[in-house]
Amino acid sequence: MRPVDILRKKRDGHALEPAEIDAFIHGVTTQTWPDYQISALLMAIVLNGMKAEETANLTRAMVYSGQKLDLSDLPGVKVDKHSTGGVGDKLSLILAPLAAACGVTVPMMSGRGLGHTGGTLDKLESIPGFRVGLSLPEFRAALEKVGCALIGQTGEIAPADKILYALRDVTATVESIPLITASIMSKKIAEGIDALVLDVKCGRGAFMKNRTDARKLAESLVATGNANGVRTQALITAMESPLGRAVGNALEVIESLETLKGRGPSDVEALSVALAARMVLVGGRAKSLGEAETKVAEALRSGQGLEKFRQIIAHQGGHPEVVDDYSRLPIASKRALVRSDSSGYVGSLNAELLGRATMVLGAGRDRVEDAVDHSVGAILVKKVGDVVQEGEMLVELHYNAAWALDAAMALAQQAFVVEEVPPPHYPQILESLGDN
Amino acid sequence: MRPVDILRKKRDGHALEPAEIDAFIHGVTTQTWPDYQISALLMAIVLNGMKAEETANLTRAMVYSGQKLDLSDLPGVKVDKHSTGGVGDKLSLILAPLAAACGVTVPMMSGRGLGHTGGTLDKLESIPGFRVGLSLPEFRAALEKVGCALIGQTGEIAPADKILYALRDVTATVESIPLITASIMSKKIAEGIDALVLDVKCGRGAFMKNRTDARKLAESLVATGNANGVRTQALITAMESPLGRAVGNALEVIESLETLKGRGPSDVEALSVALAARMVLVGGRAKSLGEAETKVAEALRSGQGLEKFRQIIAHQGGHPEVVDDYSRLPIASKRALVRSDSSGYVGSLNAELLGRATMVLGAGRDRVEDAVDHSVGAILVKKVGDVVQEGEMLVELHYNAAWALDAAMALAQQAFVVEEVPPPHYPQILESLGDN
Repeated sequence: MRPVDILRKKRDGHALEPAEIDAFIHGVTTQTWPDYQISALLMAIVLNGMKAEETANLTRAMVYSGQKLDLSDLPGVKVDKHSTGGVGDKLSLILAPLAAACGVTVPMMSGRGLGHTGGTLDKLESIPGFRVGLSLPEFRAALEKVGCALIGQTGEIAPADKILYALRDVTATVESIPLITASIMSKKIAEGIDALVLDVKCGRGAFMKNRTDARKLAESLVATGNANGVRTQALITAMESPLGRAVGNALEVIESLETLKGRGPSDVEALSVALAARMVLVGGRAKSLGEAETKVAEALRSGQGLEKFRQIIAHQGGHPEVVDDYSRLPIASKRALVRSDSSGYVGSLNAELLGRATMVLGAGRDRVEDAVDHSVGAILVKKVGDVVQEGEMLVELHYNAAWALDAAMALAQQAFVVEEVPPPHYPQILESLGDN
Repeated sequence: MRPVDILRKKRDGHALEPAEIDAFIHGVTTQTWPDYQISALLMAIVLNGMKAEETANLTRAMVYSGQKLDLSDLPGVKVDKHSTGGVGDKLSLILAPLAAACGVTVPMMSGRGLGHTGGTLDKLESIPGFRVGLSLPEFRAALEKVGCALIGQTGEIAPADKILYALRDVTATVESIPLITASIMSKKIAEGIDALVLDVKCGRGAFMKNRTDARKLAESLVATGNANGVRTQALITAMESPLGRAVGNALEVIESLETLKGRGPSDVEALSVALAARMVLVGGRAKSLGEAETKVAEALRSGQGLEKFRQIIAHQGGHPEVVDDYSRLPIASKRALVRSDSSGYVGSLNAELLGRATMVLGAGRDRVEDAVDHSVGAILVKKVGDVVQEGEMLVELHYNAAWALDAAMALAQQAFVVEEVPPPHYPQILESLGDN
């Protein structure tokens, strides 16, 4: 099977056979296909698309480019959650302990932040001592003992994805629903999970800017999961303004702990409960979504979720004292206030601009190999719909390096639009897929 | 200007600016763009196309990737001819001397054969001593003295094309009218010509299988030539069955000489005169196409064309005695006859299959670096429309290596379709573009 023939077929708009997709991914993994043929095929896939069946086959081939974990000897249904990434999205830190507290086994492998959105691993690593790099035996032991482990993708998981992603980044072939689907789902399916709950973000602060694209991606993810034996559900949720009030790694850990203590922002709590309840439902720990929601709310109210998070931290080498003493987390040395230059209502709050403001301060990274400053970030004083007077605080920036402040303040200021009339209220959960 | 931004723009279907096209070709020529970005952009061009203006700019950028010859100090209008390639297409060997005999300066740079179609350089090299590798000063001197020189492209001519072509070949990005146009026209424009006559082949034996595609290519070639200051005309001509009766390098030289002696097959003579007349017209040596045709016919009848060919051979180091003594050309050691297994009319004669039959015998090559056997080939005994009896000869194969004969005979047999009723007569010249 010659690469050029496979290329020609996709170029001419035909569907690729499973054997052709296998040959492609084998060529990628063993590096026997040269980069120029891989990138030409990626561009042809971007422009001519893939049928649902091809996407499922591509995903399967990428799963088997590495190791697929077998967690079948662990009791219960193994359920993970994945978010397509948003600003201030600390939900994994809240819902994983909540779902585990309700008896679901949660083997969660996450990524690092890139661009204006944060990553779960960076947030966890702001907890002193926390090890996200557990070996696979350690991962398994943590699941057995604690019921939940939060780690990074190991090299054994879908190695083809890493090679493809590096090439997609420099060849303008990132924006493709089949390729995004295969990248996300191959890594999740390789974890050995039984079910998956997806949070597909939609809006200005997300990769998918509009509802049509978000729905297409959600449908593709759900179909691909189910075709590969993983029961998959998805919520499409709004990502116009940041989630909660904290943006930045340690600041988001604090907000997560506050939420698990019942004192979190309402949007963070509501979405955490909604997603955790779906994990409990697909995890077989409730008969209906209503029952699942009641269970999760009870785990939150009773503090069982908080205790589960404390256990996770302790088991993965972190200092569990941070749960009660936030001063043990890294703290930025300086504060700066961004004030409103007019009076009215916060009409909108641009998540991408605010994300970029914290990135400038060092909270995020442009390239995978860059380090992040866990202490810096932003605390939103005003949220969308709030009344604001000229000169009032909008956001507090936490920073260390003075040189970056001006740019960050300008971006943060620009993120807020103050208007004369209050904005309409939009729902947080836009759509639910894969329920039946 | 980052490659990934240029890639994204073409991926999204936008037209590239001249500066972006220049950056691309500069990146190709200096090898500062990695292959994987070049091939991804090539695939995006194949699938999203280019506007006429972009194609003209791409062509210009490729011209200036190397040297553009300046022949302005030579007297008269410099006119070249280019064919998109057919089986048995030896027309350059006939029309170049004819046009030069009529006073046109013909600086002709040609390519080698690839796949089932032959190349002018390979045909010329079957003449003992003939040097197609003249240096640029030698090329200029030949034009000054003889009025015509037939050489290969030198390394100074459009080096970007060579790099792009190698990559297109292995990434299924050959089939693109803008890319084909830029490849052909950049090399022609870089020759320093004033005008160009194109023979765009259309049909089973050609790259363009149907009229619509052939017309699109012809229009693109004509527009690109004119946009770059080269007055360009095109004929779209039929390439269903081979041109003339000879296929194979030395055999085609003989047929060319026979045609210049007034004894050639009618299709070869007619098309040679038609194309040479257009060269004479755009070369300013006649006021109308009718006058030009009369001049060319006279050059043929009087033997001036033959004498011009003799001068060209002599000037380029070849043995001019071949003109009178064909036994000085390489001759294959063996003959094999392919006979008809039924009676009727030759309904069709598949040029591609016959081309592949001679290729199997060694007349052509699969890869640019392969050598060819100048002596082997085929002589068609029957042509389309001829009456044939069962057992009668269809074609005579000239070969050296017995191992290849069976495959070649099977292909040659397959090329002939014998039917009960005579086939309709199709015209040879299908269309004429760029006349005004």
